[in-house]
Amino acid sequence: MKINGTPYRSVWVDQQDGWAVHIIDQTKLPWSVEILRLTTVAEVAHAITSMQTRGAPLIGAVAAYGVCLALRADSSSAAMEHDCGMLVATRPTAVNLRWAVDRMLTKLRDTAAGQRVRVAYEEAAAIAREDVAQCEAIGRYGAELIVDAARRKEGRRVNVLTHCNAGWLATVDWGTALAPIYMAYEQGIDLHVWVDETRPRNQGASLTAFELGSHGVPHTVIVDNAGGHKMQHGEVDLAIVGTDRVTRNGDVANKIGTYLKALAAHDNDVPFWVACPSSTIDWTVADGVAEIPIEERSGDEVSLITGRTEDGTLATVRVTPPGSPAGNPAFDVTPARLVTGLITERGRCAASHDGLLTLFPERTKAR
Amino acid sequence: MKINGTPYRSVWVDQQDGWAVHIIDQTKLPWSVEILRLTTVAEVAHAITSMQTRGAPLIGAVAAYGVCLALRADSSSAAMEHDCGMLVATRPTAVNLRWAVDRMLTKLRDTAAGQRVRVAYEEAAAIAREDVAQCEAIGRYGAELIVDAARRKEGRRVNVLTHCNAGWLATVDWGTALAPIYMAYEQGIDLHVWVDETRPRNQGASLTAFELGSHGVPHTVIVDNAGGHKMQHGEVDLAIVGTDRVTRNGDVANKIGTYLKALAAHDNDVPFWVACPSSTIDWTVADGVAEIPIEERSGDEVSLITGRTEDGTLATVRVTPPGSPAGNPAFDVTPARLVTGLITERGRCAASHDGLLTLFPERTKAR
Repeated sequence: MKINGTPYRSVWVDQQDGWAVHIIDQTKLPWSVEILRLTTVAEVAHAITSMQTRGAPLIGAVAAYGVCLALRADSSSAAMEHDCGMLVATRPTAVNLRWAVDRMLTKLRDTAAGQRVRVAYEEAAAIAREDVAQCEAIGRYGAELIVDAARRKEGRRVNVLTHCNAGWLATVDWGTALAPIYMAYEQGIDLHVWVDETRPRNQGASLTAFELGSHGVPHTVIVDNAGGHKMQHGEVDLAIVGTDRVTRNGDVANKIGTYLKALAAHDNDVPFWVACPSSTIDWTVADGVAEIPIEERSGDEVSLITGRTEDGTLATVRVTPPGSPAGNPAFDVTPARLVTGLITERGRCAASHDGLLTLFPERTKAR
Repeated sequence: MKINGTPYRSVWVDQQDGWAVHIIDQTKLPWSVEILRLTTVAEVAHAITSMQTRGAPLIGAVAAYGVCLALRADSSSAAMEHDCGMLVATRPTAVNLRWAVDRMLTKLRDTAAGQRVRVAYEEAAAIAREDVAQCEAIGRYGAELIVDAARRKEGRRVNVLTHCNAGWLATVDWGTALAPIYMAYEQGIDLHVWVDETRPRNQGASLTAFELGSHGVPHTVIVDNAGGHKMQHGEVDLAIVGTDRVTRNGDVANKIGTYLKALAAHDNDVPFWVACPSSTIDWTVADGVAEIPIEERSGDEVSLITGRTEDGTLATVRVTPPGSPAGNPAFDVTPARLVTGLITERGRCAASHDGLLTLFPERTKAR
């Protein structure tokens, strides 16, 4: 998508040297667009851990390029297995990360060491290319929901609520939850997006608002506390969020606070949709609340907030008393019973095992 | 309650001159304890509007003293009615404000102009004194719930979740939602409080955490998004919140986001209690969602965050992109069906008209 008229992706290989990996440093958004050049697997791991690059689908693609950089340094099987294990450990919740690294390993274990670098770059490029195609398809299937809402409202503006950032900055392009919004907007639907700020890291306020504003989509930032009130008063027509992992029963792990919005949507008969590329489905897990490990991140993410001062410099301020500890679970699980449906690259389905099998019948035998 | 060993109330009359009104500037907490000396009704109105003083019960007491200051300047009936109207208009949602000013007016309309200042100070002092007694009683009735939870847990630590600040800083002393916590803590119950930071104004992180820390009560600040996850995983034994207005049917208006926590509590069978002095009950209103006006405050409260930099100075930073508007509803309404019960100064009751009438039978005939 575009920033100030220039088309970007969120990860790409240097066109000059053909091997270095470039990402947008998302910790600097929305204040400045800074490109990072990554040349080692350690730099990739750091970029993922520090959330310079983030978003479940994007992490997968970046990690795949991390495998490429690892192999450039040492293409032996022992080093490859070690570095892949290190990459998988950078973020415990996102299933795409493991999925992408496993896909790379499956391809590379059968490849001679001397061929591995070339094959790895091809496979990483395929992962990125397929991610873009998946997001486009999700956008098409999801836009139909917004178009339907506009039809029911007889042209009155459609209000969509989203949480965190599942936009093009969280994928290679288009996004997952925001892809339907971009497509409906491009089709001329009169829409407006309520953007949850998404504490503690404020990815809604900083990334989603930045994305939508850069593209011209009308939106308003609200605190995470406000969405229930908006739904009570008919100001939300549908909610669309992304996900870091969907279980085979349709439970949805996503950014902390998603569960609360799903409860409010359910209480107010607001459709609650989850945009979910198939790489995000974890067929090995059934009960999300019981089985999905939830990353506990540093309390400093709660206590310290970075923003721009009036003179244009960035500053970090503490917002909790010095003696007060802070807890920081990064994700929560929304039970399938609260999810209206899933939007995948193959179409929409109910958030249930049966629903998923209608779109992924090949999984019937896999179990 | 105490700050660094010194007992404070949140509003008091100057002991030297006997008339100036002192408050703690709550916009400076938790970083510094600054006392404001208010000498005119305009200063009182500004202190309420700017939230230098806040919390439904405290606003009522401060407004009562505002009437005193107004009468010192002009004790005529015309000026009194005008200034009281101005005070009532400072915050539209809190019912205590109107209640306190109406009580002052009822007393003062029948008082000769020459006697009004003296009578007003007596009445304001009575309002403050009664508020303290009410909070103590709420503390006793609410502490029983925490003691019961401790008994059920056989001595294991009791976890209480609270939202916003309904502590002694929101009342004249003790607090409403925090009074039971202070009392249970004083009784030696092993407890811990999850403190919702309560965006956008962060009253949880700045005021509740400050209060609890100053008193030595174990607590952890979490973002507003996290409470649902904590409840899903059995880490919350009960929730206690304050309220700005309770309808005669038991619907609860409170700080934005309360509704979301009540939904999560209901979904996880976590008792959800509302501490509610009788002055907060609005017997004229039945349906909270339909009838209670919700104050829409400036979007700057969402976009701009003030905190302390590493060098100890206060700084304000912007956390939303310059081109992104922000919405800011300050309260929401939790339907009575989600409320386990109300804790009043007369005891506990169900959040319903019948429940309230068991404690306030005199209201049966009033309607």
